[in-house]
Amino acid sequence: MSVSMSAATTPLTNLNPAAATQIAAFPTSLPRPTTSPTRPLSITCSSSTLQTPTSAATDRVFNFAAGPATLPENVLLRAQSELYNWRGSGMSVMEMSHRGKEFLSIIQKAESDLRTLLNIPSEYTVLFLQGGATTQFAAAPLNLCDPSDVVDYIVTGSWGDKAFKEAAKYCNPKSIWSGKSAKYTKIPNFDSLQQTPGAKFLHICANETIHGVEFKTYPTPAGENEVLVADMSSNFCSKPVDVTKFGMIYAGAQKNVGPSGVTIAIVRSDLIGNAQPITPVMLDYKIHADNNSLYNTPPCYGIYMCGLVFEDLVEQGGLAEVEKKNVKKGSLLYDAIDGSKGFFRCPVEKGVRSLMNVPFTLAKPVLEAEFVKEAAKEKMVQLKGHRSVGGMRASIYNAMPLAGVEKLVTFMKDFQARHDHA
Amino acid sequence: MSVSMSAATTPLTNLNPAAATQIAAFPTSLPRPTTSPTRPLSITCSSSTLQTPTSAATDRVFNFAAGPATLPENVLLRAQSELYNWRGSGMSVMEMSHRGKEFLSIIQKAESDLRTLLNIPSEYTVLFLQGGATTQFAAAPLNLCDPSDVVDYIVTGSWGDKAFKEAAKYCNPKSIWSGKSAKYTKIPNFDSLQQTPGAKFLHICANETIHGVEFKTYPTPAGENEVLVADMSSNFCSKPVDVTKFGMIYAGAQKNVGPSGVTIAIVRSDLIGNAQPITPVMLDYKIHADNNSLYNTPPCYGIYMCGLVFEDLVEQGGLAEVEKKNVKKGSLLYDAIDGSKGFFRCPVEKGVRSLMNVPFTLAKPVLEAEFVKEAAKEKMVQLKGHRSVGGMRASIYNAMPLAGVEKLVTFMKDFQARHDHA
Repeated sequence: MSVSMSAATTPLTNLNPAAATQIAAFPTSLPRPTTSPTRPLSITCSSSTLQTPTSAATDRVFNFAAGPATLPENVLLRAQSELYNWRGSGMSVMEMSHRGKEFLSIIQKAESDLRTLLNIPSEYTVLFLQGGATTQFAAAPLNLCDPSDVVDYIVTGSWGDKAFKEAAKYCNPKSIWSGKSAKYTKIPNFDSLQQTPGAKFLHICANETIHGVEFKTYPTPAGENEVLVADMSSNFCSKPVDVTKFGMIYAGAQKNVGPSGVTIAIVRSDLIGNAQPITPVMLDYKIHADNNSLYNTPPCYGIYMCGLVFEDLVEQGGLAEVEKKNVKKGSLLYDAIDGSKGFFRCPVEKGVRSLMNVPFTLAKPVLEAEFVKEAAKEKMVQLKGHRSVGGMRASIYNAMPLAGVEKLVTFMKDFQARHDHA
Repeated sequence: MSVSMSAATTPLTNLNPAAATQIAAFPTSLPRPTTSPTRPLSITCSSSTLQTPTSAATDRVFNFAAGPATLPENVLLRAQSELYNWRGSGMSVMEMSHRGKEFLSIIQKAESDLRTLLNIPSEYTVLFLQGGATTQFAAAPLNLCDPSDVVDYIVTGSWGDKAFKEAAKYCNPKSIWSGKSAKYTKIPNFDSLQQTPGAKFLHICANETIHGVEFKTYPTPAGENEVLVADMSSNFCSKPVDVTKFGMIYAGAQKNVGPSGVTIAIVRSDLIGNAQPITPVMLDYKIHADNNSLYNTPPCYGIYMCGLVFEDLVEQGGLAEVEKKNVKKGSLLYDAIDGSKGFFRCPVEKGVRSLMNVPFTLAKPVLEAEFVKEAAKEKMVQLKGHRSVGGMRASIYNAMPLAGVEKLVTFMKDFQARHDHA
């Protein structure tokens, strides 16, 4: 049978042989259904002006956005290949009943892989939620505190500050240290912290996306039963974490582990069950825990995408291996900044510089717009700094390839050579 | 250039010529980017054992699930074709900054098409939210009421009942009519309702998925400034609605308009801005309205999918045309039930039978498991009734093709012929 496909259809560029090869090569660790109504397929194609096998790659930009952010190419290709019909089920993941056996297998595998990656003990509950980390700013105190309870906040950037402010509706939060006067370029010495006696929990934002400040070690709560709570949205699954140090970890997926619309919460199970009476049912951890995140309809496609990412991270060798790659990428970029004799500058204290978000400025700010514009022409996009701080920012999450950072560094050196006449 | 693709790759069955033809044929009403780095593509393929062009269709099941639910095939194929690289942007919709021009174009087009479909006046705000309709059970009273305000609820099924119960945390809800004693098979005569003087709003669930009860007309709130609030999750965009009758309409997308993870709220703008102090920021309509649903990272991919669905509904001729199709499908199924001389039974009062969810039982309940099992073998899945009521349920949302209902009806008649020896 001979088939001709004409292609004014730009979308078909996504379905070229390079993609097909990648799809065929993608590890198929999930069991395939045994009944297959389709006969084996063999196609020989001759093409007059076929795209080169690397064209799928050359179509892609290097996307330095802070979230939503770049995702692993193999994950995207896999999701594409099975969007219409997931593994012989006859339907898309987007169409599945969340209570059917197909989706249950998806969410259970996602949780299982996450537990493997982070070595999550059985005393911790894993929840897949909606509402972003911003909902957790309210949910954490609502679930863990009475209204009169004191909670200590270490504020190292905008996100810790937002969490601190939202908490005021539900508990008695204290900002026991703020980096604001230093323009959010530091993390405190933990021994110097004045923690509040009787505080219910100590809250940190493990990585601040806007200011590029990352905790490399964690403070110990002073109180006997006091727990550490961390917003890990922007460095979740970028490196190993000792979950036992925490009462709760929460993370919006859309930095390192998936698309927007899924928030993961890891909560020590004994902390669940005492939500304040005003807690909306959708913010009550006990409701979600009792129902394995299926109290209502979860964000199914987002959870599926997270599952593909977790599977890929496991196959990379886990978070220790992933951390090595991130250290390499980060070092490359920071060394380029620090070695530029001041042409590029990163204000963050060296010991707490984020491996995920790298803010930098030019000695000549007037050139910043040109820098961003030229980089975009070279297919390096979303380098403009957050609107609240200006300058530039390169977000280099797990899925940013080393090649993207190398290209950026090459561009930076070339840009300097063309503009640095100091 | 000659390319050979070997195919142990079941996923490639999704990328067969039938799909390619459909992709090429899909209306491209959104503007294409003018720069295209890829050259036009022409492929001539000869295949030894190629799947038949209809195999994409035969791979699909007829999915009668109540939500998440079946989606239009052309929408799924379009999403698949552009998942890896959206319209030359070099990235997936899942990777886009929600504040970038590409995603802004997506969300603005989605809102624009929705306003067209429902003829939404400019005095109404459209919000794309997370958290499901279940979050709105709390958010509606939190935003529209003081804690002491009375709110009237008409409870016609499980979902109205859940909304009523959640509201007790945030206002003074009254259930002014409940269909529970009639096993949720009725809707009240509106003239007989005893509405509470001074009630802030009157709440209905426009379509109850579990019990198959649908409002065909709407009650008028008795109070001068009292508004009507409706949960339209399961019949949203299935028929025209006069939005001006409502203070607020909310709907989880995952029945008629998209995947799970997106909730749409249509709120009369003058009602926004008086949320109770305990309202979490993510539940505050003013925060979302002031930020065009971009206060935090929205569920981007879900909004994109809703946009594709809205575009498709516009192209079908709008909701009046869609309603005709739904009436035809519903009539076919209800006539089969009513014409079965009692072998099949639907308990819902005829004037309020849902066009979206059709619950039915067998005169011989012992045969119900066999019915569901045999139907599944015939690729009609998810026909089992909700666990709280048993029996069967066929959800026949917009995207259920007429062919699916026809197949079900044929199957029902055949099943009866084989089992009805009364």
